[in-house]
Order: sequence, then C-alpha cells, then structure tokens
Amino acid sequence: MTVRIGVIGTGAIGRDHIDRVTRRIRGASVTAVTDLDRALAEKSAGEAKVYPDGAALIASPEVDAVLVACSDAAHAEHVLTAIAAGKPVLCEKPLAVTPEDCLRIMAAEESHGSRLVQVGFMRRYDAGYREMHRVISAGDIGRPLLMHCAHRNRASRPDYTTEMAVLSSGVHEIDAARWLLSDEIVSTQVINPRSTRHRLPHLTDPQFMLFETASGIRIDLEVFVNCRYGYDIRCETVGEEGLLRLPDPARPELRASARIGTAIDQEWDDRFSAAFDAELQAWVDSVPTGRATGPSSWDGYAATAVATATVRAQQSGDVEQVNMRERPAFYA
Amino acid sequence: MTVRIGVIGTGAIGRDHIDRVTRRIRGASVTAVTDLDRALAEKSAGEAKVYPDGAALIASPEVDAVLVACSDAAHAEHVLTAIAAGKPVLCEKPLAVTPEDCLRIMAAEESHGSRLVQVGFMRRYDAGYREMHRVISAGDIGRPLLMHCAHRNRASRPDYTTEMAVLSSGVHEIDAARWLLSDEIVSTQVINPRSTRHRLPHLTDPQFMLFETASGIRIDLEVFVNCRYGYDIRCETVGEEGLLRLPDPARPELRASARIGTAIDQEWDDRFSAAFDAELQAWVDSVPTGRATGPSSWDGYAATAVATATVRAQQSGDVEQVNMRERPAFYA
Amino acid sequence: MTVRIGVIGTGAIGRDHIDRVTRRIRGASVTAVTDLDRALAEKSAGEAKVYPDGAALIASPEVDAVLVACSDAAHAEHVLTAIAAGKPVLCEKPLAVTPEDCLRIMAAEESHGSRLVQVGFMRRYDAGYREMHRVISAGDIGRPLLMHCAHRNRASRPDYTTEMAVLSSGVHEIDAARWLLSDEIVSTQVINPRSTRHRLPHLTDPQFMLFETASGIRIDLEVFVNCRYGYDIRCETVGEEGLLRLPDPARPELRASARIGTAIDQEWDDRFSAAFDAELQAWVDSVPTGRATGPSSWDGYAATAVATATVRAQQSGDVEQVNMRERPAFYA
Amino acid sequence: MTVRIGVIGTGAIGRDHIDRVTRRIRGASVTAVTDLDRALAEKSAGEAKVYPDGAALIASPEVDAVLVACSDAAHAEHVLTAIAAGKPVLCEKPLAVTPEDCLRIMAAEESHGSRLVQVGFMRRYDAGYREMHRVISAGDIGRPLLMHCAHRNRASRPDYTTEMAVLSSGVHEIDAARWLLSDEIVSTQVINPRSTRHRLPHLTDPQFMLFETASGIRIDLEVFVNCRYGYDIRCETVGEEGLLRLPDPARPELRASARIGTAIDQEWDDRFSAAFDAELQAWVDSVPTGRATGPSSWDGYAATAVATATVRAQQSGDVEQVNMRERPAFYA
Repeated sequence: MTVRIGVIGTGAIGRDHIDRVTRRIRGASVTAVTDLDRALAEKSAGEAKVYPDGAALIASPEVDAVLVACSDAAHAEHVLTAIAAGKPVLCEKPLAVTPEDCLRIMAAEESHGSRLVQVGFMRRYDAGYREMHRVISAGDIGRPLLMHCAHRNRASRPDYTTEMAVLSSGVHEIDAARWLLSDEIVSTQVINPRSTRHRLPHLTDPQFMLFETASGIRIDLEVFVNCRYGYDIRCETVGEEGLLRLPDPARPELRASARIGTAIDQEWDDRFSAAFDAELQAWVDSVPTGRATGPSSWDGYAATAVATATVRAQQSGDVEQVNMRERPAFYA
Repeated sequence: MTVRIGVIGTGAIGRDHIDRVTRRIRGASVTAVTDLDRALAEKSAGEAKVYPDGAALIASPEVDAVLVACSDAAHAEHVLTAIAAGKPVLCEKPLAVTPEDCLRIMAAEESHGSRLVQVGFMRRYDAGYREMHRVISAGDIGRPLLMHCAHRNRASRPDYTTEMAVLSSGVHEIDAARWLLSDEIVSTQVINPRSTRHRLPHLTDPQFMLFETASGIRIDLEVFVNCRYGYDIRCETVGEEGLLRLPDPARPELRASARIGTAIDQEWDDRFSAAFDAELQAWVDSVPTGRATGPSSWDGYAATAVATATVRAQQSGDVEQVNMRERPAFYA
Repeated sequence: MTVRIGVIGTGAIGRDHIDRVTRRIRGASVTAVTDLDRALAEKSAGEAKVYPDGAALIASPEVDAVLVACSDAAHAEHVLTAIAAGKPVLCEKPLAVTPEDCLRIMAAEESHGSRLVQVGFMRRYDAGYREMHRVISAGDIGRPLLMHCAHRNRASRPDYTTEMAVLSSGVHEIDAARWLLSDEIVSTQVINPRSTRHRLPHLTDPQFMLFETASGIRIDLEVFVNCRYGYDIRCETVGEEGLLRLPDPARPELRASARIGTAIDQEWDDRFSAAFDAELQAWVDSVPTGRATGPSSWDGYAATAVATATVRAQQSGDVEQVNMRERPAFYA
Repeated sequence: MTVRIGVIGTGAIGRDHIDRVTRRIRGASVTAVTDLDRALAEKSAGEAKVYPDGAALIASPEVDAVLVACSDAAHAEHVLTAIAAGKPVLCEKPLAVTPEDCLRIMAAEESHGSRLVQVGFMRRYDAGYREMHRVISAGDIGRPLLMHCAHRNRASRPDYTTEMAVLSSGVHEIDAARWLLSDEIVSTQVINPRSTRHRLPHLTDPQFMLFETASGIRIDLEVFVNCRYGYDIRCETVGEEGLLRLPDPARPELRASARIGTAIDQEWDDRFSAAFDAELQAWVDSVPTGRATGPSSWDGYAATAVATATVRAQQSGDVEQVNMRERPAFYA
C-alpha cells in the first residue's frame, strides 16, 4: 500500500517534507497540497493536486493521511478537521499555540477512540537521543537528577524574536527532556545573560532557562541562536550512578594547520536530516496500522503548556508554575 | 515507477537485502527470488515468486533489475546473464572470483554500451568514508602519501579461513583505498604477526597487509577477525598537508564506574547498516535512469586482481605484483 | 638560596605540602612545623623543628616563608602575624572565613607596601585552566557571556556538610571563574535538585549554583559530591565568537569488552597533583623576589565574599547580592 | 645533599638540560660544563666552572654526576671515563653509535659492579607512556600482537638526513616498543612511500619501518618529519584482549569558525617537556642511592643494535636481522 499524503502548508518546512516523501521515504507519495498562497502551493505540487484549502484537502478521497506544516496558529484547526475525518495526521510542532487548543485536540482524539496524531518532535528519532533514551530507561545511570542542555544556532534570521527562543528552539529540549526523563516539567524560569553583539537589537540572546520536574529533576538550557560557530545541540543527563552525554555527530578528524579537529554542522537540517527521515518513515509506516505512534497529542499539549509558562517567565523574570491537567489514561 | 527486483541467493546477505528493499528502500519491491536451496528461497519469498534458477529469474518480464547475492563462485555467470538480458545488476562483492571472469563481464558490459553493473562495495556509501572522499578530493590534505587501515571483527565463525581475511574482509579496504586515493594498487604483501590464542588453529589471525599504489602511496592494513572487543574499522590517510581519519560512530558518552566511554558496535551490519541502505537506494534510484552508478565492473575487476595477488602473497610470503589491464576508456 | 619554609598545620593538606616541598619542589626545604596537636606535628616533622605555635614558628629566624594549612578559622590570625613579621605566606583557601578578616589582611598587606600573600587556589596552575585563560585573554572566543561548570566528587566523607559544597568545593570554581573572566561576581543563588540516594541524610547533594558577574555573565555550577564515577571538573566558557572547554586529563584509550574508553581520576589530588606542584614552585620561586604572585589577598577576599553570600543563598533560597568593596589600586 | 652535575656538551640539548637542572629540578646544581667550543661552554656556564675537556670535568672533585650531551660520536668515550671514575652518568641517546662501543660500556659497568648509566630515553617518563606500560604490564589487553606507531615532526632542519629518521627519530619508538612490550626486536625493514614535496631533495620522507620481535609481535612505524601540522606521536598496541592507544595531550576544546578542535604541539620539547623534567629528576634522585635506574646500558645497546640494522635496511631495501648478544644477567 502506498500512503497518499496531503500536505497543508508549502513553506520551507512543508516543501522539505514533500521532498523527503518524494525522494527518501518508502511507501508514500504526496497526492495533495494546499497553501494560503496558492501560487506557492502550485510551485511545490509536482504531480500532486492543489486544493483550495485544508478542509477540501482533508476531505479528499485521494488523501489517506494529512501532514500539517502551515503557520503555527492554524495547526489546531487542521488537526481537528483531520481527526473529525478520521484521518491520521502528522502535525509540525507546536500541536497548537495554546494549551486550550491542545486539550480540544486531545478530547477529539479520545472521542475518536484511538491515537490519530503524531507531533513533529523529530529529535525522538535521532540515533543519539534514541540511544540516550535506551540507556536511561535501562537504568544504567540510575535515577536522573540533573540535565544540562544547550541549543545553539549559527545565526538567527532577522524575524527571529525573543519568544521564539522558547517557542521555536527551546521547545525541542522541553519535549526531549520530558521524553528522556519520563517526567513532567512543573516550573520554569528564564535568566538573561549579557547579550551577544552579534544579535539584532530587538533580541535577547543568549537566554538561560531553568526547569523543574515533578520528581525534582532540574534542567538547565542555554538557547543561543547567534553563537557564530555552527548548529550545536548538547544534552547531558546526570544520574545517581553516572552521566550520559549526547554525542557530537561523527565527522572525520583532520590534523592540519596546527589543529586537530572536525567540522561542525552549520544548519539544523544537516544535523537532524536522518532524524527527519526516520520520523516521516515511522509516521508513514504507522498509517496502515490505524494507530499513531511517537510524540502524541499529550506530548504536544505538555510542550505547549511548558512553553507558554516559559514565555510568561521571560516577561515576569520570575519562576512560573506550569498549569497542566493530569494525563488522561488514554495517553498512558 | 516501482523497480521490480529479482534476488539470486537467499542466504544471510540475500535475506538482508530482501528485508531492506521491503522495509527501508523507496521505489522498489522484490518480485522474484531464487536459490539453489529452493526451500530456503521459499522461506524468504514473502510475496515474491520463486524461480527455479537465476536464468529463469533474469528472463522474467516481472524482473526489472537483478540483485546477485549467491555464492561467490556463481556471481560471474549471473552477472553475464543479466548483462545479456540488458538488465541492471547489483552484484555483491566479489564481482567474480577470478580477474579473467571480471574482464569477461567488462567486455560484455562494454558491448552493451553503457554501465549495467554496480558492485556491492557499500563503504562508499558510509557517511564517514564519503566525507573523507570529499575532503581528500578537495585537496585539503594535499597529495596522499600513506594510508593506515584496520579491519577488526569481534570473533570469526568456525568456517572463516586465512584466505578470507583477504577475500571477505580486506577486500573492502582494497576498494576503499582505491576509491579514496584515486589510484591503483600495484603490489601487495602479507606479514604474519604472532596469532591470537582466540582463533581456531587453522587460522592465521591477525594478518598485516601492505600495498603500494602506482603513484607510490603505501597502505598498511591490519585484519584481525578475533579482536574480542567489537567491530572496528579504522582508516587514516596521511597527506602532504595534513592527516584525515575516519571517525568512530557517534555514541552517547557514559561516565560511570570510574570510566569515560562509549559503546562500540559488535557486528558489521550494525556499523554499516545505514551504508547498506544508501547503497541499495542509490542502486534502485539508478535503475530507471538506465545507467549504473557507484562501484563499477572495473572496480570489481581491480579488487579481484589485488585480492588474488594478495592471496598469492599470503602463500609466498613475498611481495607480489598485481597484474592488471589498463583501465578502458569506457570506465574512465 | 634555599627557601626555609615553616608549615602551620600538619593535617592532611599540610602533610601533603611538606611532602611536595621535600620531594618535588626546587629551592626549598621545610625547617619548621607546628600544629595544635603537637604529636601530629612531630610525626610529620622529618628534619624540621617543631614549634609550640604559629607565632613562635613565624618569629623564628630559621623560617623565611610561612605556609598556612591549619583549620580555616585560624588562617587569618597566622596570615596577619606573618605580614606583621614581613614574611611571605602561602595560605590555603580560604584566606579567612569572613570578608571582614580578609579586609583586615588586605589592609595589613597594603601597609607593608608590597604583596606578601598568595592564596592557595591551585587551579590557576593547572595546565588546562592556564591555556583556557590564555585563549580567553587573547580574545579568541570574544567577550564571554556564559560559563557552565561542574565539580563532582566520587563520594563525600561523613563530615561533609551542605555548606561545604560552597566553602570547600564551589569556592574553587568561584575563584576560577573570576580569574578566567576577569570579572567580579555580584549575585548568587542555589537551587536544589532532587538529592541522590548515595548521600548521607544531612546532606543536600547535588546542588546547582547560579552566579552573575558585574558585566552580566551568567555562571552555572553543579556541585555533586557523591557522583560515584570519579572526580570530574568541567568548565566551559561561551563567548561571542566561540566556546572553550576544559579538557579531560589525557589518559590512554582502551578498547576492550565492547567499550571504547579511558580511566577517570578518582580523587582530587590525582587530578590536580601537577597543579599543586606548580603552585608551590611558583610560590617558592617568588619568595626571593620579595613579591608575591598568583592569587592575591584581594582574590581571597572576593572568594570569601561570594562564598559567604552563597551560603546565605543556600539558606534563603533567594538570589543574594554579594557585598564587596571596590578593588584597591594596590591590587590592580 | 645537592647533586653537583657536570655537563659535557653545551649545544641545544645540553643548554636545555642545564636550564632544567637550574630552574626545574630538585636537589641538583650544575657546577661544571665543557664543550669543544669553549666560547659556547662559557656562554652557558652561569655559575658553573668551565673545564677544558670531558676528562678534566669528570675527574673534578666538584662533580658528583655527569650528563653527556655532546655529539653522538663522543658519547662512548665520556661514558667510559665516567664509569672508570665511578661516577653516575646520564647519557643522551644514543649510548654509542656502534653496538660494539655499547658492549664495551656494558662490560665496564659490569666490572664496576652496579649500574652507573641511565640512557636518555625520556618517553619512559611521559605520563601517557607510563600508563600504557602499567596497563599492558597488568595484562589488561592480554598478550600484545601488533603495535602501530607514528613519529611526525612539523618540519625538519636542512641538515636532517634520511638516516636520522632512524637514528634521531625512530630510535625513540624502538626503545618505547622494547619497553612497553618487554620484548626484543629481531628484524627490521624500511619501506619508502612517495616522498612529500615539502622535504629537501636529499631526504626520503616519510619512511615506513617494520620491526619483528622475538615473540613475533609486529611493529610498524611511520616516521614523517615534514608533516606540516605539528609534532605528533602515536602509539597503539593491539593485544589478544583489547587495544590501547597513547592519548593526545589534553588541550582545551575550542568551538569556533565552523570547527571543533584543539591545538597540537608544534615542537618535541613542548610535547615532552614534563617527561624531560621527570627523567632528569629521576636521575638526580638516583645519584645519592648509588644505583642508576631507568633505561640502562643494555637498553642503549639494544636500541643501537636495532637502529644500526635499520640503517642497513634503509640501504638494502631488504629485511635485516638484528644481531644482538644475549642479555647479561647483570641487566636482568
């Protein structure tokens, strides 16, 4: 069976997903696309049909599964429509921009009776993170106590805002931490170090975020989106019996010009290209089974709840509590 | 278009390829299988049809491309049949067990008028090797002068022979060296260190091989198939301006029990799993273009010529010359 | 000239210093020792004369320079006596347990007219820290913005207290940060993650400390004194142009038992043995010049001021301001 | 007791040793110097007395121990004179330029009745090599089977000759291998890869040397004295149970300009500075005991015997046997 995918949103991420499905993923093809900017949709369509809007695309009998990659604010609407149609959906993060909308999606999914939604936290498909998850879950470092993270980009685009350090960047670590630690974040705080001269004046960069989990694990996260030297993701978990650290990607070692060294990825899509492939493949593979796998609506809700509280913390300068519902048995 | 693949030989490697095509590769399906042991073929067939022999499989109109994974001695016959049928073929290494048979294949392919054959040297699809190739080709280490290699397996199977250290193991480095250095090996020698107590009595292990290229580069290669600690592939090229080293796979670093360390792969199919995927995908992608890419019949011939001379060197204890034809313009 | 050293305090550290002077340092000998426990002093004396108390030892014409290694509370008294006698003094950290006593020492030293005091912050003599200092001072990472530190011990002794995580352990990072960043710490905070089960009930362990400098650099420090796996000191400075990280000690890499790894030091005196030697040698070499070098009374004062505020922060759970005098021109 | 050292030869190495004794070593002073070039000796003398020749220096009652750092050809004469005078001697490598002269020294030392000679193989005092020795001796990698070595210099001086790749450079690995493996080298061979364009025309560079030990261990050694990128010493021992590798020196890791990397030493005296200190200190410490420690005349003899055979191998292009006496019980 070839899964026929409809893609909502053909901006950079959407086009990237279309390209992956077309050239790298097994068992799927893109049969439908739509975008608010119809010309853009047509440009990316290839052999896919262009639909006037998300609702029409989701309703099409030529669409088995829906990939939501439009603007964040429109995610919830399309996901809800897909659930109503009983169609599997891969939604780019965030699942929704408010916790309330995430809860609405959860309620709809629960009414449907089985998981239909996978949220696009692709780090869970990165080989290094996966092995960390395996080692921590196996108990090899004992109970986790601390986690030290960094999320660094070479340079930010002009429209990158201080809030995006949480909503676009840090949210990946928020999800990764929840997943690696099997724990929920209950409070959050943001500290502002001196900013780099290499940022635009409107931006606070770097930022230093602190999270606490329900069981008392403390997580610190440096988000630095103009670090100049490359795209660099660090994650280190300190447990009662040992410490585990995410590896740098394997690159040939060069000894030349009085230095021993390796290249470092410059962009996030280089660093996580294989993870994006694995994420999409896992999604495509899950469609025929009728049961979504990977990051769930609950995970999407938790990430949005923590991110929302963290944006409040950016503004208040205080420790902010994360207000979260209890996890429904449906998502256990 | 879905490439319909016929697989000749359903032993371990053949089954592994069937599994990859079925579960991991885009744009292909296995529609035909055959094996001398028909029961074995049927066990691996899945939805594919079982053919009585390679000739019947190759002739089938339901087979677009042929994957040869049977016993080494039968490779040449099937490759020649596939060429005669004008069908693309991916042949597991070696292309043939004698240089003469390789030349016969080259002649047939040249008569056909375009490349039909890809030889299964999957290291050329490993990310680390590929970046080494890129850096060396870019001239970043200057002209190569020396290459230091090691090929270590945790433990060899009882039927592994001293010759297989060349024919099954070292042949991968022979091809990788030729490819990385863009040079041909002209002489070869094998030196026997003291053997490990962890080998069966019939086996000489480790072995230390020395190669010289046409331009005077010296390559040394330790093949050690009972090294106990894991599967470990080392490759280091020393050039006039610097040195480049194949990385170890990226694995999370664990600090525990008074050690800092990482796990090491135990088996070759773990280490090169992504390379095998990429190799097969590249082959599948090349089929509709009508033009084979990757390691060619010429590469298969060169590897067999060097390996044959190296087996002579194992027996003589002397430096043996590699007798090779000049490279035909067809393979330039 | 051989510098004749009098050692006040012959507990573990004192004996260690005596041993270094006797066996590893050039140009010095221990001629005098004293301890509240006279029997202990006699046991460590070797060829040195045992004095009844610090005052007598300092006054002795056979003592050129004084090494203060007694209990923390008595440091200030002996340092002041040595200054009054015009004798150079190496004082183990802390210079004094209160900022006020440190100020008294600074005043006495300034009256004397030249530096007589070196404080025992030996990390400034560690090769890795020294190269970090050189690289940062050269501007290679631009202006520092963040510093991430960890101070981990394998296991703490039963009498180790929660306060000692600041006063005995973290104070090293406090000094190292001030030195590497050429900046003063102005506020401090302590966060308590879940404690490890491997600590005694009276102890909070690990602790996570946060510091801010006058120029807005943020420093975080994990102190974890029962981490189980070894003695591990981490220090990473993030600057506007790049990032610099303290190396792990160089140890042979072992590949065995399915792991690639190195040993890790188990105790602090293994890790910093060479730094202690270099510290003592630098001190001995400075004596004949009549001018102390290395960490000064000002550094001792600053460390005590920050540590005192940090202990307050442990108790209050709040951000505490560090109250420090302006740096006198004498210590510029 | 202060050991009064007489230094024969005040060229670069001699001056370096004088400097170490004067500024870094405990328990010794240089009281006497001599050089064929008297003006040079006077320039380096400091407070030491200048003697007309080695014999006069050795005979002086103001000399307790002799450090031989003159031209290689004169080593044997001075060492023999020192033995005749019953004075301890540290002789820079080689002990003598011919095996015969080494045997003469051994005979003289044996007649004296106890070891008086330490040969200047300072790698045995390098922390990395020492830990390798400890781990191998402990049996952690099982019986050694292979050793892979490299000795690379940034650039050679104009007067560096092809023979010096053995006599000045490779001889260090010859000694280190004998010491680490507790085995003797019995045959030797030199292979010439293509030479780098960065060498003077008279020089063959790099060279690739192969050694076999009595127990069948195979050692390969790349000597490359114009590698451009730095001073780089590699040593890897492959044993029946695992593999052990000499570490690169610990240097801070810098992430900047799209690279992750560390600096590499540019000169041998940077790389082995601490080893030279430890070597000299060990020698000085041994003088009062009346019993030389460290590399012995036997080690000096073995190194010269292997090096001599290796120079023959450079010329013959063949495998050359090393002709060595049996080890006298005196040196067991």
